[in-house]
Amino acid sequence: MTSPAGVRTLRVIGIGPGDPRQITIEAVDAMTGVDAFFVLEKSSRGKGSTTDTLIGVREQICDRHLGAGNYRFVEVVDPPRRSDPDDYDAEVRRWHDERATRIEDALRAELADDGVGAILVWGDPGLYDSTLRIADAIVERGRVPLQIEVVAGVTSASALTAAHRILANRIGEPILVTTGRRLADTPPGIDTNQIVMLDADCTFRHTAAHDDHIWWGAYLGTPHEILISGTVGDVGDRIAEERAQARAEHGWIMDIYLLRKP
Amino acid sequence: MTSPAGVRTLRVIGIGPGDPRQITIEAVDAMTGVDAFFVLEKSSRGKGSTTDTLIGVREQICDRHLGAGNYRFVEVVDPPRRSDPDDYDAEVRRWHDERATRIEDALRAELADDGVGAILVWGDPGLYDSTLRIADAIVERGRVPLQIEVVAGVTSASALTAAHRILANRIGEPILVTTGRRLADTPPGIDTNQIVMLDADCTFRHTAAHDDHIWWGAYLGTPHEILISGTVGDVGDRIAEERAQARAEHGWIMDIYLLRKP
Repeated sequence: MTSPAGVRTLRVIGIGPGDPRQITIEAVDAMTGVDAFFVLEKSSRGKGSTTDTLIGVREQICDRHLGAGNYRFVEVVDPPRRSDPDDYDAEVRRWHDERATRIEDALRAELADDGVGAILVWGDPGLYDSTLRIADAIVERGRVPLQIEVVAGVTSASALTAAHRILANRIGEPILVTTGRRLADTPPGIDTNQIVMLDADCTFRHTAAHDDHIWWGAYLGTPHEILISGTVGDVGDRIAEERAQARAEHGWIMDIYLLRKP
Repeated sequence: MTSPAGVRTLRVIGIGPGDPRQITIEAVDAMTGVDAFFVLEKSSRGKGSTTDTLIGVREQICDRHLGAGNYRFVEVVDPPRRSDPDDYDAEVRRWHDERATRIEDALRAELADDGVGAILVWGDPGLYDSTLRIADAIVERGRVPLQIEVVAGVTSASALTAAHRILANRIGEPILVTTGRRLADTPPGIDTNQIVMLDADCTFRHTAAHDDHIWWGAYLGTPHEILISGTVGDVGDRIAEERAQARAEHGWIMDIYLLRKP
């Protein structure tokens, strides 16, 4: 796709959950002809941080598919974010707004006015990711004429079920995709199958029954992948321990799990 | 991965929702070295049927990535299935059991005893697909020693949100993935975001409020792709009409939608 004159393009490209081979051919095609890849860098970046590791994997993906030296990364430093605000949603909105401004500035400074930029997103851009929200905010402001393209990616939920070689659902059953923060709010009856993301506190230990089954995975598709499954009563504490240990060892963790009622 | 002697391998490979470019590099790698691709063929196969079209796309994918003539398809005729049984779950189980027997027979007949077979699955093998359930049934019977490998794919849910350039959730909100059959059972409060699959009856017209928003997509990633979005009051009837028309024209349809409360 080409942009009309004076309109920049921003490609929001899902690159899958961690394994560089879990990227689609559509994503590789979309990476070709990109003038600059914008990378959102945490302000607290330190050695061995998530950011360092994940930028590393992005570089690996670009090296492999575009050739070393044939692409350009532009790092955009993330605004700082309060970790435990009084109003969680308001703080997220404030932070996204500030982030949008920084990316808007970078798009203007780093791309020609019909240039093509891209942001590589872990997993799929449509699921628990803020990039599209930011892109929409920039489009709405209208200061930088911009068209958005989106490329779907493999989700960490699919990577989890594939790694355990299971289905997310029994025949015809619904699946709730939720977060650790919201897990305690799931009404009974709808908790048959739950895929839980962003749960630093292993909330399942307080919400699930002993005989609920859990399939847990961390660092999916990477050499550090950890998989544990069993009833919450049997493996719940082990998951919490291995999670804490791995997080301390690597400096970061990305994990996800499926909870199922018997 | 290689199998121990006397153990066949069955690779269950997600190939994405329709666009041959939405396949991952991992899936292409997994297709290499496969001795036979097993294709489940509907017994009611007719010209212009789903099966014909979908086998066509699978052949296109294999031609492109393995080279024409470098692969072998084995068609396994699906057992007939009652369309409106008294006990839906029992009928599905009976049908899966019969299907497992036919695939088991084909694995034994068409593969050497350490051979590698594969089944290419639309979307992701972990979401509303029966292939893994069948594979597990064959492993449990133990008549054909078999190891299963699973490759995740892009889901039709991700293809839907990417095509509409939207997120499946607002900040922190849960998402319920469900079917047309179950849609009326969703309790209030959990119906904020619903991704609905397998809904031949456009059930949302009876369950959703007029000002609920719907993002609907059919034939995602194919040249026939149709996208409609708006409030259910504004576009609900149009979706039902276009769906019926397209189904009549093509002889089959695959569609999915996201419903959101204001």
